[in-house]
Amino acid sequence: MFSPKFDELVQALRILPSVGPKSAQRMALNLIMKNKERAEILANALHDAVNHIQTCSICHSLTEDDICSICQAYDREDSLLCVVESPADVMAIEQTGSFRGKYHVLGGRLSPLDGIGPEEIGIPALMARLQQGQIEEVILATNATVEGQATAHYLLEACKHLPLRMTRIAQGVPQGGELEYVDSHTLGQALHQRLQFK
Amino acid sequence: MFSPKFDELVQALRILPSVGPKSAQRMALNLIMKNKERAEILANALHDAVNHIQTCSICHSLTEDDICSICQAYDREDSLLCVVESPADVMAIEQTGSFRGKYHVLGGRLSPLDGIGPEEIGIPALMARLQQGQIEEVILATNATVEGQATAHYLLEACKHLPLRMTRIAQGVPQGGELEYVDSHTLGQALHQRLQFK
Ligand SMILES: [Zn+2]
Ligand SMILES: [Zn+2]
Repeated sequence: MFSPKFDELVQALRILPSVGPKSAQRMALNLIMKNKERAEILANALHDAVNHIQTCSICHSLTEDDICSICQAYDREDSLLCVVESPADVMAIEQTGSFRGKYHVLGGRLSPLDGIGPEEIGIPALMARLQQGQIEEVILATNATVEGQATAHYLLEACKHLPLRMTRIAQGVPQGGELEYVDSHTLGQALHQRLQFK
Repeated sequence: MFSPKFDELVQALRILPSVGPKSAQRMALNLIMKNKERAEILANALHDAVNHIQTCSICHSLTEDDICSICQAYDREDSLLCVVESPADVMAIEQTGSFRGKYHVLGGRLSPLDGIGPEEIGIPALMARLQQGQIEEVILATNATVEGQATAHYLLEACKHLPLRMTRIAQGVPQGGELEYVDSHTLGQALHQRLQFK
């Protein structure tokens, strides 16, 4: 209401998750009134992040390089692969400090009603990675939601013929809970107490 | 943790009011994963707003021009001046749709312990404006906090010698407020300032 550019800023702030019209207005006023310099820092950080952060060509997590630091790390086990839905889950698991293997990010979960099948979440690429023979254990760490469970189950079936130990993170993640919102202690426990399926 | 630019974005998002580390992380992931284009829109909106929004040279609210649209409006009463602490208050009052006068934004409140005296909140400029003689009524709409009350009281004293009607926005039980949940100071005020109906 002060000016078109103010209104544009309020609208733009609403793309942030869980920011409604009232808090977008409050944020815009706070930035203009008290944090002009830091608003510029935020603008530049957004611009830089959007233009430099990409998908790791091995694990499909996020990185500024072609291959992420976890995939590049020599001190992590190549024989242990943790399959997750999103980079947020990689972040959540890293924050537990209880995993020293590598990751594979699906970038989603199976959801036939939304037209998301195995191709859409890159399962062929994962299968190719598993067939290279370096991996001994696959930890299925998809969310404990209905679709996450279905995705884990699908992968279990798909890997039946491969000489792999397949595990699923333990119960302890509450039913219906999404990994990125679980506290790291619970998530660490769940990793530690994973059950062997095959 | 994915990359330095990711961490920088998380840090930068924390300048937003009531955004903690967890939600900054969630916002950053959401922007990078799902809203890359809109993140650019937000970056540009921030940049534009910071560089083009300034203080109105008459009322000290926010505007892209030298003089804001409210000060420029021909259909608003020049004789009625509402004094508020911040542009956020202008916004709140405009959203009621019940005020058709002009504004004066102090940009703060008196707070002697923080070294904020009359000069710091531009009271000399306000006095100069009042002495021009166009204004007939001043509505003191500073906050109902201790400092806001002290500021209103200071202005009342400062304007004693001027031929102005001085009013203060009413204080009492908010619309829909239940008496048992209203703090006793507010309730005491509401009783004290009761309106006679008959
Ligand atoms: Zn990687
Ligand atoms: Zn103005």
